[in-house]
Amino acid sequence: MSLPSLRLKANADRRLRAGHLWVYSNEIDVAATPLAGFAPGDQAILEAAGGKPLGVVAMSPNNLICARLVSREVKHILDKSLLVHRLNVCLSLRERLFDKPFYRLVYGDSDLLPGLVVDRFGDHVVVQLASATMEHHKHDVVEALVQVLKPTGILLRNDASSRDAEGLPRYVDTAYGQVPDWVALEENGVKFEAPVREGQKTGWFYDHRMNRARLAPYVKGKRVLDLFSYIGGWGVQAAAFGASEVMCVDASGFALDGVERNAALNGVAEKMACVEGDVFEALKELKASEERFDVIITDPPAFIKRKKDLKNGEAAYRRLNEQAMRLLNKDGILVSASCSMHLPEDDLQNILLTSARHLDRNIQLLERGSQGPDHPVHPAIHETRYIKSLTCRLLPNS
Amino acid sequence: MSLPSLRLKANADRRLRAGHLWVYSNEIDVAATPLAGFAPGDQAILEAAGGKPLGVVAMSPNNLICARLVSREVKHILDKSLLVHRLNVCLSLRERLFDKPFYRLVYGDSDLLPGLVVDRFGDHVVVQLASATMEHHKHDVVEALVQVLKPTGILLRNDASSRDAEGLPRYVDTAYGQVPDWVALEENGVKFEAPVREGQKTGWFYDHRMNRARLAPYVKGKRVLDLFSYIGGWGVQAAAFGASEVMCVDASGFALDGVERNAALNGVAEKMACVEGDVFEALKELKASEERFDVIITDPPAFIKRKKDLKNGEAAYRRLNEQAMRLLNKDGILVSASCSMHLPEDDLQNILLTSARHLDRNIQLLERGSQGPDHPVHPAIHETRYIKSLTCRLLPNS
Repeated sequence: MSLPSLRLKANADRRLRAGHLWVYSNEIDVAATPLAGFAPGDQAILEAAGGKPLGVVAMSPNNLICARLVSREVKHILDKSLLVHRLNVCLSLRERLFDKPFYRLVYGDSDLLPGLVVDRFGDHVVVQLASATMEHHKHDVVEALVQVLKPTGILLRNDASSRDAEGLPRYVDTAYGQVPDWVALEENGVKFEAPVREGQKTGWFYDHRMNRARLAPYVKGKRVLDLFSYIGGWGVQAAAFGASEVMCVDASGFALDGVERNAALNGVAEKMACVEGDVFEALKELKASEERFDVIITDPPAFIKRKKDLKNGEAAYRRLNEQAMRLLNKDGILVSASCSMHLPEDDLQNILLTSARHLDRNIQLLERGSQGPDHPVHPAIHETRYIKSLTCRLLPNS
Repeated sequence: MSLPSLRLKANADRRLRAGHLWVYSNEIDVAATPLAGFAPGDQAILEAAGGKPLGVVAMSPNNLICARLVSREVKHILDKSLLVHRLNVCLSLRERLFDKPFYRLVYGDSDLLPGLVVDRFGDHVVVQLASATMEHHKHDVVEALVQVLKPTGILLRNDASSRDAEGLPRYVDTAYGQVPDWVALEENGVKFEAPVREGQKTGWFYDHRMNRARLAPYVKGKRVLDLFSYIGGWGVQAAAFGASEVMCVDASGFALDGVERNAALNGVAEKMACVEGDVFEALKELKASEERFDVIITDPPAFIKRKKDLKNGEAAYRRLNEQAMRLLNKDGILVSASCSMHLPEDDLQNILLTSARHLDRNIQLLERGSQGPDHPVHPAIHETRYIKSLTCRLLPNS
């Protein structure tokens, strides 16, 4: 198969040679290779200004990121065969890491499959296609997954708002076999069911797996508060690890039904209390009624979705963490998570320090957690790193 | 007891109010309170320029850091009673974290005990006194430890070069009871003996405990190379976790005797090979003889001891990691650690990226480890954070 060329301007190959996979539209020599000549999903041979081929790119010609490197070998175009190869490379890592088939199988750029996310729940697979290219290759993706995993069903959760920018419609569709509304998974030895059709993202957040595992030594025999609990990823694990009592707070009644369902699965329903409502309001009410907790977990949705939200988002993280600290017992543990890619870990640490000082508490930073190894970071693409989880001990200042 | 005053210049209280514990000599209003009036180990009430008391400081009047905040309450001076209180606060965290009494009990500033490090090996305790103040309170420290831990023996490892700057002599002394030359410990379920008198620092490095625990899924059935192995902290654990073969490289024959001793303790001696010699030379020889490994661990001594070593140190980390990568099998894992406080984690990550690109490999960053929770970070004192451990997967670029 012969592919058209996409020619870069002088020096625009540097970032790519350094490991990056994205090509910006202002880096293209449009006189030589006009972007208008490409349709979304087309593939091309990317060339440096001097004509040297750099690899194969998949095109999104109408976007700021107008192309993504699919392979550094010009003979490897994105097709079912490359997808099968890449999926096997993904699978071999996850099978090395995990005893059971519950994990993120594909994490986009980091797995050299830009625009593709695949979460595996045993025999059921949930897929997100985030780029015009991957949408274009939808059938190849499904067939490659069938070949590699032999699943019972594949669900496409193509309803993320990020698809709008790629000019893609939002939809949810069973692309292969059967997928129930709730699918079973296990994390750190604790059983869950996740609402893959109605839940957030793919229905479950595998990214905090290792940070949740680290709850164990902190929660034994303790009273725990889980803020933005969703379906109990943190709270139910805390209960299963031996917490004496767990309160989950979430704005969604549907999510809290999931907490109850998952608590029951692990025989810890009697330890759990669910509070439906706005978390900031709930924190005020808990303060007013003088409730106190030994361990507080706060894992909010991204308060900083775009760079321009940074200031307001930081203020929200500050308010949240400071209000949470006020509810801690004397020797208390705060697990403060953030999934905002735009919030550097050091900023979150600084928010915790200033909040603690503001309350005249002494703070020790005990653990610094990040996304699990089934969400590898591509070290040239800082956007692939987003999860932070800081575990702190708060003490009176004496 | 009435203490003399130590008066700060205008605005010099800001950093302390923000959480820091150190006072620099150029921040003192020496007209009001001359530093010459103090002896090392003296205590004083630190006052803001306006006279407001900020707490109690312990003095090192001849040093750049001329005082360290001991307490923010003027009534709490550093004495045996405060030491006992602080040790109990330290102990309650470690007992919550660990089933067995093997951990760093006191980590200096982060535990509000500047200049004091205590490693616990069951009934044996190894202490480092790093400041003139703590040296001055040596007997209080020993008595407080006896009261809180009831140990069999306390060893002072006061032979660190950092003591020179404080004007303190270097010595090793059994300050209480009996301490054998080798003491037993357990880490991640693996048994060790550490040479507390003759070994590096306190004889053992508890700081990488959690990073070593994470070796388990990567090493099973694999061939492992442990560079700068010391007495086998990483290598013996890799063998115990199921590695098929482990080669330890270290310049010290004494350390390698320790590897053999610790391997035998866990019944994995037949899997271990020890190579005595310079690590960089050994890497060249292994390359020349076409040896290959599935997992390589590199945990060198600090290449960057002072800020001015940054450039040379970074070059050494680059050389080390790139040479290690050359010895990896096709789908290989590199665990790249650094204990250089002056090397930011992002710099190490960048070194790994550029090395991988230089060898035309694709690199995935799987795990980002830091010092264990018995080495808490004081978020206002960046010097308290030093351990990095990046676990990467190296793949051919196809």
